[in-house]
Amino acid sequence: MIEFKTVKVEVPKDCNVILGMAHFIKTVEDLYEALVNAVPNIKFGIGFCESSGPCLVRHEGNNEELRQLAAEKAFEIACGHSFIIFIKDAYPINVLDKIKKVPEVCTIYAATANPLEVLIAESEQGRGIVAVIDGLKSKGIEEIEDIRARKEFLRKIGYKLG
Amino acid sequence: MIEFKTVKVEVPKDCNVILGMAHFIKTVEDLYEALVNAVPNIKFGIGFCESSGPCLVRHEGNNEELRQLAAEKAFEIACGHSFIIFIKDAYPINVLDKIKKVPEVCTIYAATANPLEVLIAESEQGRGIVAVIDGLKSKGIEEIEDIRARKEFLRKIGYKLG
Amino acid sequence: MIEFKTVKVEVPKDCNVILGMAHFIKTVEDLYEALVNAVPNIKFGIGFCESSGPCLVRHEGNNEELRQLAAEKAFEIACGHSFIIFIKDAYPINVLDKIKKVPEVCTIYAATANPLEVLIAESEQGRGIVAVIDGLKSKGIEEIEDIRARKEFLRKIGYKLG
Amino acid sequence: MIEFKTVKVEVPKDCNVILGMAHFIKTVEDLYEALVNAVPNIKFGIGFCESSGPCLVRHEGNNEELRQLAAEKAFEIACGHSFIIFIKDAYPINVLDKIKKVPEVCTIYAATANPLEVLIAESEQGRGIVAVIDGLKSKGIEEIEDIRARKEFLRKIGYKLG
Amino acid sequence: MIEFKTVKVEVPKDCNVILGMAHFIKTVEDLYEALVNAVPNIKFGIGFCESSGPCLVRHEGNNEELRQLAAEKAFEIACGHSFIIFIKDAYPINVLDKIKKVPEVCTIYAATANPLEVLIAESEQGRGIVAVIDGLKSKGIEEIEDIRARKEFLRKIGYKLG
Amino acid sequence: MIEFKTVKVEVPKDCNVILGMAHFIKTVEDLYEALVNAVPNIKFGIGFCESSGPCLVRHEGNNEELRQLAAEKAFEIACGHSFIIFIKDAYPINVLDKIKKVPEVCTIYAATANPLEVLIAESEQGRGIVAVIDGLKSKGIEEIEDIRARKEFLRKIGYKLG
Repeated sequence: MIEFKTVKVEVPKDCNVILGMAHFIKTVEDLYEALVNAVPNIKFGIGFCESSGPCLVRHEGNNEELRQLAAEKAFEIACGHSFIIFIKDAYPINVLDKIKKVPEVCTIYAATANPLEVLIAESEQGRGIVAVIDGLKSKGIEEIEDIRARKEFLRKIGYKLG
Repeated sequence: MIEFKTVKVEVPKDCNVILGMAHFIKTVEDLYEALVNAVPNIKFGIGFCESSGPCLVRHEGNNEELRQLAAEKAFEIACGHSFIIFIKDAYPINVLDKIKKVPEVCTIYAATANPLEVLIAESEQGRGIVAVIDGLKSKGIEEIEDIRARKEFLRKIGYKLG
Repeated sequence: MIEFKTVKVEVPKDCNVILGMAHFIKTVEDLYEALVNAVPNIKFGIGFCESSGPCLVRHEGNNEELRQLAAEKAFEIACGHSFIIFIKDAYPINVLDKIKKVPEVCTIYAATANPLEVLIAESEQGRGIVAVIDGLKSKGIEEIEDIRARKEFLRKIGYKLG
Repeated sequence: MIEFKTVKVEVPKDCNVILGMAHFIKTVEDLYEALVNAVPNIKFGIGFCESSGPCLVRHEGNNEELRQLAAEKAFEIACGHSFIIFIKDAYPINVLDKIKKVPEVCTIYAATANPLEVLIAESEQGRGIVAVIDGLKSKGIEEIEDIRARKEFLRKIGYKLG
Repeated sequence: MIEFKTVKVEVPKDCNVILGMAHFIKTVEDLYEALVNAVPNIKFGIGFCESSGPCLVRHEGNNEELRQLAAEKAFEIACGHSFIIFIKDAYPINVLDKIKKVPEVCTIYAATANPLEVLIAESEQGRGIVAVIDGLKSKGIEEIEDIRARKEFLRKIGYKLG
Repeated sequence: MIEFKTVKVEVPKDCNVILGMAHFIKTVEDLYEALVNAVPNIKFGIGFCESSGPCLVRHEGNNEELRQLAAEKAFEIACGHSFIIFIKDAYPINVLDKIKKVPEVCTIYAATANPLEVLIAESEQGRGIVAVIDGLKSKGIEEIEDIRARKEFLRKIGYKLG
């Protein structure tokens, strides 16, 4: 019998969350290295759900608050081999490449600063991630003026050349 | 309360569709560049579901028809940070590598020319992709003659050396 | 109407299973090459669910038992464009990189030696993977002594330098 | 005693040349597959210098003229484990990613439509590539008007969004 | 007739230099985007040697001083399709991955904070990079005490877990 | 004044050598991890030329003989930031991907089981790699019968499907 449950992830101010799937407890150490390689002065915490043997949430990080948050949120999610990362002073575009290359990583479900709902399937055996509800539902399609504003914004903050 | 809904994607003749997850509105511009870098003369349209602030479907492309289709289909899907791409005069194997490398991209759910059903979970907050039903269900396991025909076909169209 | 179903995957002793999503029947041959490139003497079997035309499970491998197992399990899963791989004498960390780079591959759902439950959505059209339940649910958060033991273990087996 | 020699590569009209380093004769087949995966209707020829046993230039391609040109030019270069590719109806930006990922490839020396001089070191044992002279020497530094023209050009041909 | 020449690159305090090979003037814009995606607040300048038509050094950056330095140093190097980048408030390990993925990039010759000598071959046609002399020549082989100190240092600065 | 010198690398029986360029002493530890992740039971030694401060050859490995060989050969090469790896019970195609992804790695000069000559430029400041002479010079261009034999060989050893 499968039951569906929801875990809500509130992302702390000025932080982003990344939710993904990997395997093997070495993942926490490899993710730690990937993140310290990505951005000088990045602050982060990682939680990873070991899914055999002691079945503990393994955690690492260089910021105690984010590390504790990641460990607790991973435990609340409790889906075998999933991981959750909270980052500060860096953005997902800075780190996603390096996370995707970690040899244990299977996929990334979401990377966001929005409130995130994680839909989970629970069986007698364990739990798995079904879907991520990342922020809000679309309200419309951008029109010419919105496109102009979007392009201007990306160029003003320096991400694109004019 | 979670409700499950289905969005059907009919892929236009001679086109393919790619459905994925990313974050940040820069995604539409980065996907645009990834695609023009991939194949000379590729035709495409991209729709991306912004999931905070104005929550608009952001869109780009170099073909008006495919761009409009992508924008409308993205709006129908309306799952925060998801994107949909329709391509013509190119195939997913030509472009998937470049899309997977876009710094905002989390994952690709499907790449196909088959009819696609997108199963969606909707909460009070928003919507997330649950599963993709890509074409039809398997009808059997290939036997020696099928294997021979498959190998011959791939070599005849030049994808593999004999 | 969507129905949810579960397929259980028991991983044979000393093996690992990898479950993913791709497109196009060339996938079976490209996965074959990716795996023989990864590890000398790796043993494996691959099953891939073609989702149009004859809709056959396409299969390859260099070990008859694992090839047959992969073909049968893929047929039981029967989700269009999904693939399943059983490997022996190699681990997912050795091969995931090469699989993620195969030009047809969209995503990897799981890579594990644990019992795996694959939750599937079935519509009138076909089937899609909803979630993977990979091993057991988390039982707690590691404490100082567990962290010490984890670090020691990874250094003892040579994966990390002390 | 090392002697320096130069091989000149004239790139045929509407073609580009790519010069790189790899190892193992499987390289020619893997490069073939990488290129057919990159761009539909790409035309190409590949030459690769085997450097032990029969020491033959191995060649593949889907266009006889470019294949013969690549084989002959590779033989003129004759540096162990180097390869040369001529492509038509595609550009280096379309294919370099896929070439860099071929498991045998070490590095790419140049990718260009310009006349190319390959500087070679020859010892009693064999030959190695020292440098590539790709087109002409710089004549000045771009000024404001040149920058404006460059940006306009890249946006006019559709590679960048305005 | 080939002549060998040397260009010396003094790396400014707290900066690093990256020297590589690419093709096509779009390289400067693509490198710009790769770098702003890599690290928040990175400061950089890029110079790229166009090698046909006007043969100008193309330059971009978000720091005037580094941009001017890169343009001038690129002009001094003057090897067709080579590029030079000066970065500040970031390290090569943060950005090399993203630079290697830029679709025009062929190879990276060096990434360093050390004084760099670039050995260049000049023919009647143009110039090419022969070798990079990156810092000083090795003075010995590390012994047990040096290994212990190295490991301790990398763990103390947080790059490796103890 | 630049002087050219040659270092000869004899590759031990059943081994392969990989020669590349990186930066920062963390390279030895990152290469160690990349290699243990690549192939179970791989044997290897790594030498890396630190090029500032103590300028020591840094070394790691899981096989004493190969580690010592790599350290000594790196010291003989003595080019700042270059590295040399000897591997056994694995082939370059198994590991090159993972080495290219190490965040410090700039390029790979060669990967081979052939005798290798490394041509080096020495200035008053230090040394840099000019060229690799990997095995022997080409003796001819393969003809139809050679192509048939090459294809048959690659299929017989299981690297390609027939």
